[in-house]
Amino acid sequence: MSLIDKLQWRYATKKMDPAKAVPAEKVDQILEAIRLTASSSGLQPYEVLVITNKEVREKIKPIANGQSQITDCSHLLVFAAWDTYTAKRINDAFDMTEKIRNFTSESGTAYRQMLLKVYPTRDAEINFTHAAKQAYIGLGTALIAAAYEQVDSTPMEGFDPQALDAILDLKEKGLRSVVMLPLGYRKTDEDWLLKLKKVRRAKESFISWVN
Amino acid sequence: MSLIDKLQWRYATKKMDPAKAVPAEKVDQILEAIRLTASSSGLQPYEVLVITNKEVREKIKPIANGQSQITDCSHLLVFAAWDTYTAKRINDAFDMTEKIRNFTSESGTAYRQMLLKVYPTRDAEINFTHAAKQAYIGLGTALIAAAYEQVDSTPMEGFDPQALDAILDLKEKGLRSVVMLPLGYRKTDEDWLLKLKKVRRAKESFISWVN
Repeated sequence: MSLIDKLQWRYATKKMDPAKAVPAEKVDQILEAIRLTASSSGLQPYEVLVITNKEVREKIKPIANGQSQITDCSHLLVFAAWDTYTAKRINDAFDMTEKIRNFTSESGTAYRQMLLKVYPTRDAEINFTHAAKQAYIGLGTALIAAAYEQVDSTPMEGFDPQALDAILDLKEKGLRSVVMLPLGYRKTDEDWLLKLKKVRRAKESFISWVN
Repeated sequence: MSLIDKLQWRYATKKMDPAKAVPAEKVDQILEAIRLTASSSGLQPYEVLVITNKEVREKIKPIANGQSQITDCSHLLVFAAWDTYTAKRINDAFDMTEKIRNFTSESGTAYRQMLLKVYPTRDAEINFTHAAKQAYIGLGTALIAAAYEQVDSTPMEGFDPQALDAILDLKEKGLRSVVMLPLGYRKTDEDWLLKLKKVRRAKESFISWVN
């Protein structure tokens, strides 16, 4: 199956089978894809929480419109972005890079100084929005990695982020929840969406060429 | 090569080879992956512009810190999000869905009405930010699709979005530029970044489990 076939196969699964768990190796591959994907200036300004605990998922469900995938999936991914960019977070990232590469450059130092000057002084909300966008790169990567492993997933924005932050103690970690992605397997006979055609805008209205 | 190997292979290419063009079939696969990926409520609130025109790319380069990939790549993708959600845009998406599926449901109609009530009345900036996040899902998908095809790419936020909007006449289309992604091939002997180790936060500080 080509990558495109796998993307045709994937859909926002509405009913997952609580009896089927995603194997650990597949979850690891999906998480590794997220860890390896790109982010602005390489800062990776978010974390991924993997929630398998049943009670925690039961607490999340009512603040997410009662969506059944939250408890029927085997692994609930929560993407949580940095609440702001701080000097410490930026310095940690650059220090790690210099340590791993065993390499300091003038241009790298100048770039670090530029970020230190601009980011921590900006409004926290602007920084959080920028960090959240990077988490969406992770989400886009996770979706396609899950499809590649033929694991079902459902991207979810429909939840109360402040309530989720409270359940997961994100505030004290300087994080804010952005988006969720349950991983599991479709319950084919009970998923109404599976029977319906995938709908996407035609190429002509989605892509334009400047030749 | 596994998908993870391909993600290890990819990096934000700093020097592309202007003599090597990405074959049309590969560009099509990458664009199709973007078209097929997920978006909030399935609205796909963005468009992708593919710029091959040399003169246009020469105009873009100076408003993007002179980054050489803009003119050295063979295809410059520009992700441009809806400037806001309008009733027409929402209705068009739902009308298309009902037409393709030949199916109207009470829950689908209620969902459309809910979006029509909430989105067009919200501040345009909030709507644009929400639409831009969906474009980042497309970017995350494009990155991994390009790596899968072993095509190089460089996600770019470092440009003046208003100047780019003016060059591409985006305002009159109700679009605003969000992020760029040149597609091309690395010039191995001239890319300083290729020689350096990929740096990512360790699993332990990026992923946490709630078991």
